[in-house]
Amino acid sequence: MAVTSTVPVRDADDLSLAYTPGVAKVCSAIAEQPELVHDYTWKSQVVAVVTDGSAVLGLGDIGPEASLPVMEGKAILFKQFGGVDAVPIALDCREVDDLVETVVRLAPSFGGINLEDISAPRCFEVERKLKERLDIPVFHDDQHGTAIVTLAALRNAAQLRGRQIGTLRAVISGAGAAGVAIAKILVEAGIGDVAVCDRKGIVSADRGDLTDVKRDLAGFTNKAGLSGSLESALDGADVFIGVSGGTVPESAVASMGPDSFIFAMANPNPEIHPEVARKYASVVATGRSDYPNQINNVLAFPGVFAGALQVRASEITEGMKIAAAEALAAVVADELSADRVIPSPFDERVAPAVTAAVAAAARAEGVARR
Amino acid sequence: MAVTSTVPVRDADDLSLAYTPGVAKVCSAIAEQPELVHDYTWKSQVVAVVTDGSAVLGLGDIGPEASLPVMEGKAILFKQFGGVDAVPIALDCREVDDLVETVVRLAPSFGGINLEDISAPRCFEVERKLKERLDIPVFHDDQHGTAIVTLAALRNAAQLRGRQIGTLRAVISGAGAAGVAIAKILVEAGIGDVAVCDRKGIVSADRGDLTDVKRDLAGFTNKAGLSGSLESALDGADVFIGVSGGTVPESAVASMGPDSFIFAMANPNPEIHPEVARKYASVVATGRSDYPNQINNVLAFPGVFAGALQVRASEITEGMKIAAAEALAAVVADELSADRVIPSPFDERVAPAVTAAVAAAARAEGVARR
Repeated sequence: MAVTSTVPVRDADDLSLAYTPGVAKVCSAIAEQPELVHDYTWKSQVVAVVTDGSAVLGLGDIGPEASLPVMEGKAILFKQFGGVDAVPIALDCREVDDLVETVVRLAPSFGGINLEDISAPRCFEVERKLKERLDIPVFHDDQHGTAIVTLAALRNAAQLRGRQIGTLRAVISGAGAAGVAIAKILVEAGIGDVAVCDRKGIVSADRGDLTDVKRDLAGFTNKAGLSGSLESALDGADVFIGVSGGTVPESAVASMGPDSFIFAMANPNPEIHPEVARKYASVVATGRSDYPNQINNVLAFPGVFAGALQVRASEITEGMKIAAAEALAAVVADELSADRVIPSPFDERVAPAVTAAVAAAARAEGVARR
Repeated sequence: MAVTSTVPVRDADDLSLAYTPGVAKVCSAIAEQPELVHDYTWKSQVVAVVTDGSAVLGLGDIGPEASLPVMEGKAILFKQFGGVDAVPIALDCREVDDLVETVVRLAPSFGGINLEDISAPRCFEVERKLKERLDIPVFHDDQHGTAIVTLAALRNAAQLRGRQIGTLRAVISGAGAAGVAIAKILVEAGIGDVAVCDRKGIVSADRGDLTDVKRDLAGFTNKAGLSGSLESALDGADVFIGVSGGTVPESAVASMGPDSFIFAMANPNPEIHPEVARKYASVVATGRSDYPNQINNVLAFPGVFAGALQVRASEITEGMKIAAAEALAAVVADELSADRVIPSPFDERVAPAVTAAVAAAARAEGVARR
């Protein structure tokens, strides 16, 4: 990637405008009227892609420098799909408060903060504290990007099969960043019930080994009060959502309810192989590009930030995320099939639709500042 | 300014290379062999332009957001003149140790750190501590960029008038970032003597009001042991260097030695107006683009960083700065005149010459890593 100038610097006149002495007038204007920073600098069009390299893809804790290729790839996708400038910021620190303080200090240079590949449960606290302290959008893509795209796919799968979201019982395998966020957005979207499973089974209030995040999760999920293994949770379930990387035995898949939906998103090895899933489920999605229905974050984050920056939103609310999912689902509403519940990442209608929906939702929710 | 991709992302194959799953292999390779980060990411071609907004141009302490236009202008000049990508990082913190810690945490993402518009004396400590802690170039441009260009102009002025640097007595008005750095580089370059003046007059060891930095300065400048006012220091002096923004009375200018050099660099109002300076001096330079001999940092910093990054230098040494000044002076060595002791900022020979000299000096000094 590269930084480029959008204005020419050809001669002394250009130089004295782009730099001293001309630039002094621009600085003075912002010093007097701080909101002019959005008009006179690139702040409101640039997002920091921030990581500490602690939970990179399936690779785990590889540190900040080794995580840079992911952040660069992300920055390129931000530009390509959302027209948003993005800068990789891989931080060499690990304590939650150090990460928070560092990002707060950086924030004057950026219009938004995309958190990336920070391990759970620290990622939840980092995001929560940053949202409290900053008045620009803070968005942990591993959580919310995945949740938005999953909800969009689920809405369309339900639509296709004539099911109501409120009648569906879902099981999520994985209680990390993505699993927790998907559970939240499904509950907000009115899912019938959702049980989240970690390595020890269903996250339920009767377990004595829960972290704060999982105790919170137990409070708003699993209305049925299930306990036990992932396999037992799947018995009769309507939806499987895999964000764990484990493997689900075929017998458990076979025990799911009729006309079920299987979104097995682990990469490169889905929790349930698509060929197996197709034997039992009516809609199958994965995280892979070589099967239909790829649940890919790139369908969400470029438009989410583009929309938020467009109206200078002070935050990205739950309503804006739901609006993004609805807009994403609507892109293929007229062309739904079992192999097409979610658009392709290269569908050019996606980013404009998500951008517009997020901007409108920001206005509706009162967080837009222009 | 904008961020752009240097590779296309046109289809699923491109996407799986630029992002998951392809990017995982690149990350793993860097995790195993950390130096590959320089080959596989933009780290070694990108510089953070870091400020706290405490000493912006002539405007003073206007804070991080209002300083962004300067950092953006600088980033554009980095690219235009040195081919170096640069990212504005305006930090919302002021304590020396907080600034240092924040930049250390950011450093994994960058190949070099250009410090900018941080007020003295904090800037000296920030730079010193960062140089101790980081193994990438750290360069406070207000100090060293100005010092390099000033030394280049002085070398050529001396060459033009047949003077030896070692016979010249210089007076610097201003003991801030630029004044201190110019004094150092002149001493390293073998100046006969140099006295630095602050608002209270000549910085001399007998003064009881000196900060640590000025006490240090008094130790290696002013061999003649002068004390008193700037005006008294100018009596018989060969060189005036203004980096203060004050005004020097014409009578003091008239008291300088014959064939003197006046570099009055305050912007927009030089300490000695060029028309006045020309009445007494044999070479006159300013910081302005509308008079001959503009002492402009853009002649130095793009090439200094381009050269340092080219050989992956671990630091920018004094020898590399002197080499930059010599290369810059040499560009116009064959076309010297009183109005041409320093090249124009748009002289296309400048950046390649400085880049090559800095890279060669890094190798000679043993700080190059490729």
